[in-house]
Amino acid sequence: LRVAQGARWVAIGDSITDAGRAKPIGEGTNGLGTGYVQTMDALLQAWYPGRRIRIFNVGTSGHTVRDLKERWQTDVTDLKPDWLSVMVGANDVWRQFDRVTQPERAVLPDEYERIYDELIAGTAPTLKGGLVLITPFFLELRTDDPMRARMDEYGVIVKRLATKHKAVFVDSQAAFNVVLKDLPSAMINWDRVHLNHIGAAILARAVLTAVGFEWA
Amino acid sequence: LRVAQGARWVAIGDSITDAGRAKPIGEGTNGLGTGYVQTMDALLQAWYPGRRIRIFNVGTSGHTVRDLKERWQTDVTDLKPDWLSVMVGANDVWRQFDRVTQPERAVLPDEYERIYDELIAGTAPTLKGGLVLITPFFLELRTDDPMRARMDEYGVIVKRLATKHKAVFVDSQAAFNVVLKDLPSAMINWDRVHLNHIGAAILARAVLTAVGFEWA
Amino acid sequence: LRVAQGARWVAIGDSITDAGRAKPIGEGTNGLGTGYVQTMDALLQAWYPGRRIRIFNVGTSGHTVRDLKERWQTDVTDLKPDWLSVMVGANDVWRQFDRVTQPERAVLPDEYERIYDELIAGTAPTLKGGLVLITPFFLELRTDDPMRARMDEYGVIVKRLATKHKAVFVDSQAAFNVVLKDLPSAMINWDRVHLNHIGAAILARAVLTAVGFEWA
Amino acid sequence: LRVAQGARWVAIGDSITDAGRAKPIGEGTNGLGTGYVQTMDALLQAWYPGRRIRIFNVGTSGHTVRDLKERWQTDVTDLKPDWLSVMVGANDVWRQFDRVTQPERAVLPDEYERIYDELIAGTAPTLKGGLVLITPFFLELRTDDPMRARMDEYGVIVKRLATKHKAVFVDSQAAFNVVLKDLPSAMINWDRVHLNHIGAAILARAVLTAVGFEWA
Amino acid sequence: LRVAQGARWVAIGDSITDAGRAKPIGEGTNGLGTGYVQTMDALLQAWYPGRRIRIFNVGTSGHTVRDLKERWQTDVTDLKPDWLSVMVGANDVWRQFDRVTQPERAVLPDEYERIYDELIAGTAPTLKGGLVLITPFFLELRTDDPMRARMDEYGVIVKRLATKHKAVFVDSQAAFNVVLKDLPSAMINWDRVHLNHIGAAILARAVLTAVGFEWA
Amino acid sequence: LRVAQGARWVAIGDSITDAGRAKPIGEGTNGLGTGYVQTMDALLQAWYPGRRIRIFNVGTSGHTVRDLKERWQTDVTDLKPDWLSVMVGANDVWRQFDRVTQPERAVLPDEYERIYDELIAGTAPTLKGGLVLITPFFLELRTDDPMRARMDEYGVIVKRLATKHKAVFVDSQAAFNVVLKDLPSAMINWDRVHLNHIGAAILARAVLTAVGFEWA
Amino acid sequence: LRVAQGARWVAIGDSITDAGRAKPIGEGTNGLGTGYVQTMDALLQAWYPGRRIRIFNVGTSGHTVRDLKERWQTDVTDLKPDWLSVMVGANDVWRQFDRVTQPERAVLPDEYERIYDELIAGTAPTLKGGLVLITPFFLELRTDDPMRARMDEYGVIVKRLATKHKAVFVDSQAAFNVVLKDLPSAMINWDRVHLNHIGAAILARAVLTAVGFEWA
Amino acid sequence: LRVAQGARWVAIGDSITDAGRAKPIGEGTNGLGTGYVQTMDALLQAWYPGRRIRIFNVGTSGHTVRDLKERWQTDVTDLKPDWLSVMVGANDVWRQFDRVTQPERAVLPDEYERIYDELIAGTAPTLKGGLVLITPFFLELRTDDPMRARMDEYGVIVKRLATKHKAVFVDSQAAFNVVLKDLPSAMINWDRVHLNHIGAAILARAVLTAVGFEWA
Repeated sequence: LRVAQGARWVAIGDSITDAGRAKPIGEGTNGLGTGYVQTMDALLQAWYPGRRIRIFNVGTSGHTVRDLKERWQTDVTDLKPDWLSVMVGANDVWRQFDRVTQPERAVLPDEYERIYDELIAGTAPTLKGGLVLITPFFLELRTDDPMRARMDEYGVIVKRLATKHKAVFVDSQAAFNVVLKDLPSAMINWDRVHLNHIGAAILARAVLTAVGFEWA
Repeated sequence: LRVAQGARWVAIGDSITDAGRAKPIGEGTNGLGTGYVQTMDALLQAWYPGRRIRIFNVGTSGHTVRDLKERWQTDVTDLKPDWLSVMVGANDVWRQFDRVTQPERAVLPDEYERIYDELIAGTAPTLKGGLVLITPFFLELRTDDPMRARMDEYGVIVKRLATKHKAVFVDSQAAFNVVLKDLPSAMINWDRVHLNHIGAAILARAVLTAVGFEWA
Repeated sequence: LRVAQGARWVAIGDSITDAGRAKPIGEGTNGLGTGYVQTMDALLQAWYPGRRIRIFNVGTSGHTVRDLKERWQTDVTDLKPDWLSVMVGANDVWRQFDRVTQPERAVLPDEYERIYDELIAGTAPTLKGGLVLITPFFLELRTDDPMRARMDEYGVIVKRLATKHKAVFVDSQAAFNVVLKDLPSAMINWDRVHLNHIGAAILARAVLTAVGFEWA
Repeated sequence: LRVAQGARWVAIGDSITDAGRAKPIGEGTNGLGTGYVQTMDALLQAWYPGRRIRIFNVGTSGHTVRDLKERWQTDVTDLKPDWLSVMVGANDVWRQFDRVTQPERAVLPDEYERIYDELIAGTAPTLKGGLVLITPFFLELRTDDPMRARMDEYGVIVKRLATKHKAVFVDSQAAFNVVLKDLPSAMINWDRVHLNHIGAAILARAVLTAVGFEWA
Repeated sequence: LRVAQGARWVAIGDSITDAGRAKPIGEGTNGLGTGYVQTMDALLQAWYPGRRIRIFNVGTSGHTVRDLKERWQTDVTDLKPDWLSVMVGANDVWRQFDRVTQPERAVLPDEYERIYDELIAGTAPTLKGGLVLITPFFLELRTDDPMRARMDEYGVIVKRLATKHKAVFVDSQAAFNVVLKDLPSAMINWDRVHLNHIGAAILARAVLTAVGFEWA
Repeated sequence: LRVAQGARWVAIGDSITDAGRAKPIGEGTNGLGTGYVQTMDALLQAWYPGRRIRIFNVGTSGHTVRDLKERWQTDVTDLKPDWLSVMVGANDVWRQFDRVTQPERAVLPDEYERIYDELIAGTAPTLKGGLVLITPFFLELRTDDPMRARMDEYGVIVKRLATKHKAVFVDSQAAFNVVLKDLPSAMINWDRVHLNHIGAAILARAVLTAVGFEWA
Repeated sequence: LRVAQGARWVAIGDSITDAGRAKPIGEGTNGLGTGYVQTMDALLQAWYPGRRIRIFNVGTSGHTVRDLKERWQTDVTDLKPDWLSVMVGANDVWRQFDRVTQPERAVLPDEYERIYDELIAGTAPTLKGGLVLITPFFLELRTDDPMRARMDEYGVIVKRLATKHKAVFVDSQAAFNVVLKDLPSAMINWDRVHLNHIGAAILARAVLTAVGFEWA
Repeated sequence: LRVAQGARWVAIGDSITDAGRAKPIGEGTNGLGTGYVQTMDALLQAWYPGRRIRIFNVGTSGHTVRDLKERWQTDVTDLKPDWLSVMVGANDVWRQFDRVTQPERAVLPDEYERIYDELIAGTAPTLKGGLVLITPFFLELRTDDPMRARMDEYGVIVKRLATKHKAVFVDSQAAFNVVLKDLPSAMINWDRVHLNHIGAAILARAVLTAVGFEWA
């Protein structure tokens, strides 16, 4: 596991990350929400109790990368993370499908990439540990589904940024695709976006594996 | 993993198992409670999505082995399990410490063993998969703590029964002891009995490992 | 409009029909739920106030055609309907995707057709007005989506039964397909099954048009 | 339908318009309240899905034209409407009957006309689409009922303003009168002012018809 | 005041009488509801504290004379009243206007008179004190209002029964008419049926005056 | 009745006056609380509907004359009363018995008189109608009860002030004494301070009689 | 302390005893209510932890000795007490003052004595420990207060019964009189019947002292 | 008892002191919380009603000595105490065990002593009555329990400060140790920190005894 003892890990994102975490900063028993961030914490403390890794959950429901920028100072920079994981894009894309009469609520690819790049550029150099960029995903196997196709475009952008900033890249879509071959998406969530405990475990596994977690 | 495709797994116990599961029978998304049973389900579906293992949570808060016997017919037998996991004893012991003026609420070792043995004897032969007996535990490293010492006695009984009935034996106390060397029990729960998400992960790991779960 | 003055119209189905209607029998202001049944009532009273058509909403969340049979006596027969509309099948299909570990919860095509046919056969002759069979639907344009494909099979069955029993046939899937060309399904509901006010209007329009409602 | 693709339609008024809409600005699924504004949105999206008409509900319970003036800037002007519909007067009149000891709460005809005229004069020129003025109404057929007579006076004022500002004029009182011949007002609401789903459909029909909605 | 010391007075009716009284039998502080029955009790105890008159409120919301018959045994007979006041008819009439699609909910004049007569005939002889029949009312001055006209018909029936059974007759409609000349009905209630504290005082005054209450 | 048409009557005091009135200023249906002020309003509108007397309830729970002074400007002066009724003193006295360890919460006679006098002096000249001073009371007949004796001292002060400022004087203690001869105080309230509906009627009767209300 | 190790003590009475205890039988942490019974338990466990005295609280709000008889079997006899404390009479007396129109709710002295005597006669012989009869009380020093005078009559009856059945007699009235010389009753409760934490301590002290509790 | 008549006693601490007291300053019936402070008040008023000792509860959940310093001005100094009791340290220690990943939340011994000393030094000279320093405690008999050992270190610091500032020293750990010999800690609280009514009595007894309370 590449995460050092006593490391501070900040996880930022939208509702998939938030999952009811405490406000303004979520940490500790009961403060991490009930999603993949809490699952990550459970696995880390259970497998690596001596590491005393400290996780902060600053995911917020409904947020796009624009919203992340608004609060980056208090929710990322001021927490002085050693490791930073980011997963954003679900709402940036979804608004293009569920709020077609309110186009200003969505964030199109160019703006998405520009803001995301700017945020990372300012933060990546400060991280003693590392940066983890997680692609947004859509629990849909057929790539010709309009929202799946769109989400993939954003995944490509995240991959590009990860390469540019030498971040750990987590392809969540790929991780889910593997499971979706055997498990219908409805077993995780009817809306193909939010995650139940099964989805949280799949995602936590992908993220931890990417930073060297040794399971056996 | 020794658990076959489509297997029915019934998990019975007390509040540590219950953790808010749906009544009368808890299963599916939202029905498994938020404890180690739901963690087990998450890990199984995430690592082995094709197995379609079906878990039933029939843990009930406050129960001793006497209470389990009362409802064994509807909560175990009628569900026709292939696999059955049992973890009971916490309340049988705790009542000897927190309700000293109401001695009839506790279950002493002899009665505990007698009832437990009787229940297993009737069910073990019917299980196509297997029987998993999990010791009760106390999140306390010092073996001279009265309640820890007492709990160990019950663990010895469980071990004896597991051998007798050729069950899979899970020493939960040992699993927790390993972690408690590096993590104070207060990080899991102030009362050293109930489990938060960290405790749930430790226990789920122990149970799944015991039935052949391959993590890597 | 083929529905006579003072006619009694019973609408039965699942949650799409139910939409919070009063129990045990929903009717009148506040009793019809907030879904397509209430929309139908609003349009009928507004366009045809003299008809005094009386609507009963007996949709119930989560129901399959098996559940409908259980309560057919009290919820249909005892109400002595002149007109009966039925829309069922969403749960019969959905359980095959969101509860794969609990196969007994779904209703497969043969059983679906058998029970449905039996129910209609007993009731159709008693209806002075008419019988309206509405196909179940899935808000998904791509017919190779597994759940869309499955739902279509059930639609074919409904069509067959409508012909057999000389019922008014409402192809809800077709009605939605028309709108989905211009409006993403997420504008109606993230889960592609439930209906918001827009979906309720689309469906009410289809049903009323099929019984001769004159809009202009 | 005279409303162009992507048009922004702002609907302002009192509780009949408000009907529980989201604050500060109500729009989208769940944000439009459960009254005639939501019914209009449902019908527009169902019949004209390609138009992507965007509706804002800024009705507020208890408001008179005086209250509308207080918030006109944020609730109308700042939203840059293409179309604006206004229905106000119910409270202006009602306070003359239900709060006779607090006369300052009512708005008498001269002040009503003066404020209303001033508001429209400032806004009408900015509307790319059109202005729709809806008369207040009272669900009472007998014109010698004091409150009905009073309401009619305000209706005359609205008509005058509509002519002056070349607005689309919707005579809601007339629309309701037609239905009230066959349906007692108590079927819509005991207080003859608020609307249930039936009343909402009658009013939505009148407004949409006035802007060229083609029903057939 | 004709009501003797220690007399038991039972008041039965619908929601106007009920006004939130305690169930199954309402009496004492907090048990009489907040309507005219509680006002009567307040005035009796304040003006005639030595009389110790005991009032039971058995009004129930939504009831027609049919409903009264259903519970007459427990709610009137078993209480062994010395005085019995009855006010019913509001719902018998109202259902003819607000539930036109559910005609079985209303009680037409002939049935109203028949049931009412039967109930009184059985009880009047047993009352040591007296019987008080209060007409139902509608807070509407214009006698050509359909519901006012209808209510008057029922008032005529009540008067006929009062004469027949030598009961004290209270013309509530007349009492309200006096006040409505100076106070719009909206000052009492928007629906012209229910009573606020002002209406309760008007009615209590009428009933008490009719049994000899001396105000000065 | 000395209160002119359209008169504005402000009633100020403590919880006996407050009785749940609307804040910041209580008036109208539902705004007057459920105590003697609402009873006064009910009787005035019922007996004198043409007077259109307007009542404001600004009683506040727990208040002493010191608290009244704090809010006199907004709660009395700014309302421009024609008539002002004041009943205060219950808490000034009670705190001397129920909070003996917190003496600063009580208001002793000299301070009570000084503040009260100052408030009236500033307001009485502005009242077009009149000033009504109501003594505080204690529902206790025995004058040697310490709290009753104390309350009487404050009653003497109120009488003195009424004479000085030519106010209408209402001896509430006397009014209650009359009733208490026949009705134990526990029939009004266990604590002998607060009033139920019976107490409210006694007090309203006393106040209205004092301003010329003609009951017969 | 005369109460032996492991003794079972049942405390029965009305709301003063009940104080929110668990139902049907109140015991243990959180089950004893928040009144004098819990205070007794706290003092016993704190001063005599080795005694392990087991207390059951079966007080029930509103009960008279008639109500106690109704449930004596389940609430006293079936619990097999070693010690039984009884305090009843407050409601038997109070109803004679706060419900004068419902005389059947009170229990007059003869009936009170008869029932009380009968209950004790059947139980006293079965108590291995002892019987404790506590007088009802009224927090009022003046013996000419009607309710105080009445309560004293019942105290005399309790004393007579205590002598007859050789019970421990606790004169609660006397215990409170001592404190009331220095502390107004309003410091304990406005209604002079219920007890706050101060009253609970006074009563617990009296009861425990009577059974030999050594404080120093 | 060394506490003089009318003395003002301020009790400050953490949740063990707080126990739900009223905010911002807790005093009087219902304002002292339900813990040892309320028990102290009950015993003082019951045994010494003439003293009229006035207690203020300013304990606040979760507080360390650092938090006490933040609010010392408003919560201690401004209340002008004659007596001040302080019990703090539970959270200062506990955070070292239950929040090991958030070390800044704990207060280590040196800082604890420094802040504590500074606070007392400023206040002790102003107390006309006295200063009472209560050691923090852990309901655990075995001194080799890490948290018990840690707590003892803080107890030593408190003792040192008590000597330095001539304060009354209350060794709560010792008081509890005596009881724990006969009563398992689980009878007081599962977490060995918080107190139920039994623990509150033990602690109140220790504090009052230390200031000269005479029990017999």
